[in-house]
Amino acid sequence: MLHIEFLTDLGAKVTVDVDSADKLLDVQRQYGRLGWTSGQVPVGGYQFPLDNEHDFDWTLIGARKWTNPEGEEMVIHKGHAYRRRELEAVDSRKMKLPAAVKYSRGAKSTDPDHLREKSDGEFEYVTLAIFRGGKRQERYAIPGGAQGQGSRSAPSAAQRPAPAPRPAPRPAAAPQDEEAPF
Amino acid sequence: MLHIEFLTDLGAKVTVDVDSADKLLDVQRQYGRLGWTSGQVPVGGYQFPLDNEHDFDWTLIGARKWTNPEGEEMVIHKGHAYRRRELEAVDSRKMKLPAAVKYSRGAKSTDPDHLREKSDGEFEYVTLAIFRGGKRQERYAIPGGAQGQGSRSAPSAAQRPAPAPRPAPRPAAAPQDEEAPF
Amino acid sequence: MLHIEFLTDLGAKVTVDVDSADKLLDVQRQYGRLGWTSGQVPVGGYQFPLDNEHDFDWTLIGARKWTNPEGEEMVIHKGHAYRRRELEAVDSRKMKLPAAVKYSRGAKSTDPDHLREKSDGEFEYVTLAIFRGGKRQERYAIPGGAQGQGSRSAPSAAQRPAPAPRPAPRPAAAPQDEEAPF
Amino acid sequence: MLHIEFLTDLGAKVTVDVDSADKLLDVQRQYGRLGWTSGQVPVGGYQFPLDNEHDFDWTLIGARKWTNPEGEEMVIHKGHAYRRRELEAVDSRKMKLPAAVKYSRGAKSTDPDHLREKSDGEFEYVTLAIFRGGKRQERYAIPGGAQGQGSRSAPSAAQRPAPAPRPAPRPAAAPQDEEAPF
Amino acid sequence: MLHIEFLTDLGAKVTVDVDSADKLLDVQRQYGRLGWTSGQVPVGGYQFPLDNEHDFDWTLIGARKWTNPEGEEMVIHKGHAYRRRELEAVDSRKMKLPAAVKYSRGAKSTDPDHLREKSDGEFEYVTLAIFRGGKRQERYAIPGGAQGQGSRSAPSAAQRPAPAPRPAPRPAAAPQDEEAPF
Repeated sequence: MLHIEFLTDLGAKVTVDVDSADKLLDVQRQYGRLGWTSGQVPVGGYQFPLDNEHDFDWTLIGARKWTNPEGEEMVIHKGHAYRRRELEAVDSRKMKLPAAVKYSRGAKSTDPDHLREKSDGEFEYVTLAIFRGGKRQERYAIPGGAQGQGSRSAPSAAQRPAPAPRPAPRPAAAPQDEEAPF
Repeated sequence: MLHIEFLTDLGAKVTVDVDSADKLLDVQRQYGRLGWTSGQVPVGGYQFPLDNEHDFDWTLIGARKWTNPEGEEMVIHKGHAYRRRELEAVDSRKMKLPAAVKYSRGAKSTDPDHLREKSDGEFEYVTLAIFRGGKRQERYAIPGGAQGQGSRSAPSAAQRPAPAPRPAPRPAAAPQDEEAPF
Repeated sequence: MLHIEFLTDLGAKVTVDVDSADKLLDVQRQYGRLGWTSGQVPVGGYQFPLDNEHDFDWTLIGARKWTNPEGEEMVIHKGHAYRRRELEAVDSRKMKLPAAVKYSRGAKSTDPDHLREKSDGEFEYVTLAIFRGGKRQERYAIPGGAQGQGSRSAPSAAQRPAPAPRPAPRPAAAPQDEEAPF
Repeated sequence: MLHIEFLTDLGAKVTVDVDSADKLLDVQRQYGRLGWTSGQVPVGGYQFPLDNEHDFDWTLIGARKWTNPEGEEMVIHKGHAYRRRELEAVDSRKMKLPAAVKYSRGAKSTDPDHLREKSDGEFEYVTLAIFRGGKRQERYAIPGGAQGQGSRSAPSAAQRPAPAPRPAPRPAAAPQDEEAPF
Repeated sequence: MLHIEFLTDLGAKVTVDVDSADKLLDVQRQYGRLGWTSGQVPVGGYQFPLDNEHDFDWTLIGARKWTNPEGEEMVIHKGHAYRRRELEAVDSRKMKLPAAVKYSRGAKSTDPDHLREKSDGEFEYVTLAIFRGGKRQERYAIPGGAQGQGSRSAPSAAQRPAPAPRPAPRPAAAPQDEEAPF
């Protein structure tokens, strides 16, 4: 028997019994749909393969997709709204980084230091998840495909546009980042 | 089977077994009535829909209503008294925020930094809960209606007065904020 | 079934199963007698009604009474000795506080910042418990009365002397505060 | 039923079920022999009666005796080596302290601030345990006597030499303190 | 019955029941293969005997071997890549240290202070494990031998080359240290 510890949408600490290890992700999906989370967001954000991004099952981490009033694709997690950013590959003498998609938000004054990442200028942000490199893992995908999740259908990997140049986070827009719908 | 971890009114760490997920809120109400809490108050306070404010069941988070000697409606949580404040909507070029009701108190010297929110001037406060936007969730309401809870009947959503201009916290009153009845 | 988590007198983390909620305080008394504690002392100390002070059952929080060689009534908790102090009521324009009894000790260099309370001058102290206001709760009392606990019989509420003026902690005596008998 | 939470020699968090409270110390001995520990070393170190020092069962806290290549009696706990120091009684106008035996080591740069104790000069140390005053508790002793534990037989309380003057920690030797055998 | 608490590859807190103490390492291997870890990396890194290094079973701590594109032998743990470094014995008047093998990486801005170790200059690093001295423990070895684990066969203890002079960490290479394959 396994036991998984959640923080509910009301912030309560609740452990759920799970019959066997192969049912664990199902239980995470079931309660994640209610906004329950288990464990902390890793420092620097969750790391997933890039090829899992288009149909990633956000319920696995207690998050959900949301399209904001301006039509932007965002992800809600624990009351914070994270914006999707495409980072193009870096290939300089000093650093070699594959293309990535990152979900991040502007830092709030109440975020602890170790979660704040510095960017250009004085802007600081917090990352929920980064999709980069790696090999697609089927178990992270929405069961039955991406239909029905989120507010607009995700483009397939083939359709995904070439990423724009690695954008600086948008300081002006940052405060809005932080206002999640309920 | 589920297991919910509480901090009792005596500060003890006690886990209670719960038969099924649909009984969880009942158990939270049952023990919350004794002042037991589960988990931490989220940084920035609990977030609930505005339409849940008038009959919100404070036992869900181990809190209760209290009317202070001056006749003000307050909420007691873990020995602290929080004052109800109505925040009017903000609609400027820089920020767009719906109307809200906030329960907060002046910060004490023993409050950790990450809970202190800055306000105008040097005043700092700590928020227990904020009710803003969203869609009413029936499961957060007092079962059977608001009667019998709290010390005066809460106005219905329709009766609620238009919020006053977003008030600055009242520094002069802050020390009293912090003295909760037992 | 409930489960209460203790820190034993040897500092081990031990959980004890409890059949039902109404047996919880008995279990806390039983293990508290051995010096086991559950949870942390709340920041600022435990808060109890003043009318519970004379026959408070200190085993509920893993503490016990002790009369030091100078004949002073103290309380031992986790190897620290706390001195009893009577605080008289405050009724000024700025603050209104009922009379209280406080058990506190001088701060040690190893005490974390958030537990240190400032006093007059540079003296800092740590509070175990404060008895103030409120309504007596029978369940906090020593079962069968105060006889047999502690080293001298506690005066009844009626006999208790009018509190002396709110005393400043005694800096000179502070180092001795911290030396508890085993 | 009780449940005790250990940190194994591999650093894993493992809980062990225990049938009844009177078997708890046996379980602590059994797993402590493997270097498993439960809970944290209290700030300032474990406190035991002086009369328990000569045949103290170090397995109770996951430690073991070790004689270093220079023939000094030390104690290994979680990969750190602690040196035995005898502190003579202090009886001044300002302070009154009974004789004690202390097991401590020089602080490492990675030790958290709240564990570092200041000494003469700039030297800082960390205490595992202090044996001082109190009344011998049989349950802390090695079952069957001190034979067979540690690398040399401990002198009985009667044979123990009068303690030398309270020595300053030896700064020059401190770095070696920290190199424990595996 | 025992219960071991893991952090899964998705960061979830999951406890697994284990029938008896002698099956514990098997369970750690089984889930460690999935990248699950239990407990924290000890400050300064895990400590193992040097003679366990060539066939150490990294699944015990939720890690795995990886050969980077430059052909270097590394270890992946929780998304970080650690480089293998051989430290030669030190035998000076001030310090005596046996030869060791260390797995470490350059510190990231998001690493907490207590994990950062200073080196020459301003470079800081974080250690996963250090193999030094001690006596080989069979239970730490890959069951059935080193074949089949990692990307290239490990040299036997006898074949291991004499360690090169204790190298300074390579600042220039440090950023690459931190980019682990998925």
